[in-house]
Amino acid sequence: MWHGGSPGRPSIGVDGWSRSGYKRVMSDADVFSGRALRSTVTADAEVVLTVDQVDVGPPGPDEVVVRVEASPINPSDLGMLLAGADPATASAGDGRTTLRLPDGALAGLAGRVGRAMPVGNEGGGVVVAAGSSDSATALLGRTVAILGGGMYATHRRIGADQCLVLDEGTDPRDAASCFVNPLTALGMTDTMRREGHTALAHTAAASNLGQMLNRICLADGIGLVNIVRRPAQADLLREQGATEVVDSSSADFVEELTEALRRTGATIAFDAIGGGELASTILAAMEAASSTEGGEYSRYGSTTNKQVYIYGGLDRSPTVLHRAYGMAWSIGGWLLPNFLAAVGPERADELRRRVADELSSTFAISYAFVLTLVKLLYHVIMARSFLMATGVKALVVPQG
Amino acid sequence: MWHGGSPGRPSIGVDGWSRSGYKRVMSDADVFSGRALRSTVTADAEVVLTVDQVDVGPPGPDEVVVRVEASPINPSDLGMLLAGADPATASAGDGRTTLRLPDGALAGLAGRVGRAMPVGNEGGGVVVAAGSSDSATALLGRTVAILGGGMYATHRRIGADQCLVLDEGTDPRDAASCFVNPLTALGMTDTMRREGHTALAHTAAASNLGQMLNRICLADGIGLVNIVRRPAQADLLREQGATEVVDSSSADFVEELTEALRRTGATIAFDAIGGGELASTILAAMEAASSTEGGEYSRYGSTTNKQVYIYGGLDRSPTVLHRAYGMAWSIGGWLLPNFLAAVGPERADELRRRVADELSSTFAISYAFVLTLVKLLYHVIMARSFLMATGVKALVVPQG
Repeated sequence: MWHGGSPGRPSIGVDGWSRSGYKRVMSDADVFSGRALRSTVTADAEVVLTVDQVDVGPPGPDEVVVRVEASPINPSDLGMLLAGADPATASAGDGRTTLRLPDGALAGLAGRVGRAMPVGNEGGGVVVAAGSSDSATALLGRTVAILGGGMYATHRRIGADQCLVLDEGTDPRDAASCFVNPLTALGMTDTMRREGHTALAHTAAASNLGQMLNRICLADGIGLVNIVRRPAQADLLREQGATEVVDSSSADFVEELTEALRRTGATIAFDAIGGGELASTILAAMEAASSTEGGEYSRYGSTTNKQVYIYGGLDRSPTVLHRAYGMAWSIGGWLLPNFLAAVGPERADELRRRVADELSSTFAISYAFVLTLVKLLYHVIMARSFLMATGVKALVVPQG
Repeated sequence: MWHGGSPGRPSIGVDGWSRSGYKRVMSDADVFSGRALRSTVTADAEVVLTVDQVDVGPPGPDEVVVRVEASPINPSDLGMLLAGADPATASAGDGRTTLRLPDGALAGLAGRVGRAMPVGNEGGGVVVAAGSSDSATALLGRTVAILGGGMYATHRRIGADQCLVLDEGTDPRDAASCFVNPLTALGMTDTMRREGHTALAHTAAASNLGQMLNRICLADGIGLVNIVRRPAQADLLREQGATEVVDSSSADFVEELTEALRRTGATIAFDAIGGGELASTILAAMEAASSTEGGEYSRYGSTTNKQVYIYGGLDRSPTVLHRAYGMAWSIGGWLLPNFLAAVGPERADELRRRVADELSSTFAISYAFVLTLVKLLYHVIMARSFLMATGVKALVVPQG
């Protein structure tokens, strides 16, 4: 048994544990150093991706070390990974991938210039070492899901209370995507209820996240208007039971959207796209849907509260608002950590438990690619389309 | 004494009351019919302004009839008055003023085509007839301020509970602008507090409303960043004691704005302009001001909640958001009636009482023009600049 940590704060390694093919943890080196993918913005306006040897450090009393088995590439990881650089500029050499930042982008990245930033918001793995506290040692050998960045790494030290403990026998790969997509989808329906709406709309609705949201809404009886960009995406969602699917490539998009919003009563939307006029179009359609219910003419529009939250940035261009929807409208950013902070730990725990309970049903995800850390360096070069395409998700397996 | 109204619901006219030069009310015709300015959008895409004979109707038990002595032209009145038509298109003839709507504007005005809409949000006057209830009769002869549209008229029937009763001896002209500007300014500082901010910014800050807001903030010890468009406007506000004034025509506007936001800690702004990039610039400056306080780099930006409310539309062009300020931001419409509904009647009453108490100090307004109803028809033709210029306010005196 390994004892480490600072004096008086012993940590405990896994002793005699060998299931799932993992070796027993015998030495400091086995557990507390490893490899991690890191992204560095240079003062020369380059982004350098490397796989580095890193020292994980011994766990404090309330911490554990997780051997990361799998971590997804979510759209929300690309900002840290690429820092806004276009993958078309990527080149390989000396065991690193180098990209070039667009002109003027460096100014907004001052906070990370010269710093090797860890990447990967979430992951699944096995607890291979623990600090001395009861809550930490109780996790030894358990499969856990974790959130907090730096998951494109062989090992991650993290607070025991940050681990979502999964049922015995859960494949760590199934634990990889417990947080970002599932909690974002649940956060959308929770936000909808907390802010007094009864149905919602969602753009880029054929994404993994969108499919998950559709399953949640079907299970919970919530009206959902799925907004997609291609007929094939509409078919995919309808095959999964979605009743309201609107295709923005349709010639009658605005009318179809307005009718779907009227049928469902959706007055809140979550938008993954961000740029362009879509958010404004949704607000206008919400206003038209609520106005056709009759009532006195007011040049200030209806009093129906119309909300769009931008939670992604698939289109980085400016958001253009035409403000032709009265005065009872709002548009803002929506970010999972801010949502979780707002609802508080108790509600956050309830949502996490639901994810754990429905991991193989509501929150199941399929991956199109499986990549080692080194292969991820080359995957970046292949094409942005692989990283950004709706529904084509990659899984990083750091131990490979 | 006149008794009117429907059977069993007698109304009471003013009997024997003659101060301030008003005649005793002796007949139905004196009180319950009069003239009103009305704005009609035609199916031919014209806007026709007329002064019509209208029947006010007898007051119900809980209603009064107010002889309107004065009503301001606020920017918020122009939408109902002009329906979006450019005053440059105005022409006079047959006792009416006719304007032409821009191409495509008719579609958004379907709710008012062919309807002669009353105009004028607020006004001050004297109660000259009342319904039978105690609360209504108690108002007979009192100078009151009223809100509710249709104030560009000689008489206005309205609920007794809608009247803000002013001190004996108050000139009705001083009662003209008790609601829109004063309650909007108070609503801004109230919204600031309710949403957890401690200081605010304001655009078009040299307006009558802006000067009022400056006086409120000085009196209440609230940090206020005044954003103006010309050096002369900055001088005007500084002469009135404003400490933080930023001129958007300055070459160093963004830096000066950021510093002012940092000094005050303002994280909420109220924007009268609406179109263009100013709201986005303010959000970016708020983010820069909060980020320079240090802290961990996050590609999602700070967790400082940054809010811009658009309450006017001096620039009708689209709002352009660059979204370069993290995810904790929001922009939305702000409308006085919606605010008053949200805070509830008790708080609304407190705010109204403060206006009444400070009518000749904090909430004093000066007018550049005084217009009869008929002169208003021609005033529209003179130029949009007279209607829209910051700080140049007109007062309508319907009895003239």
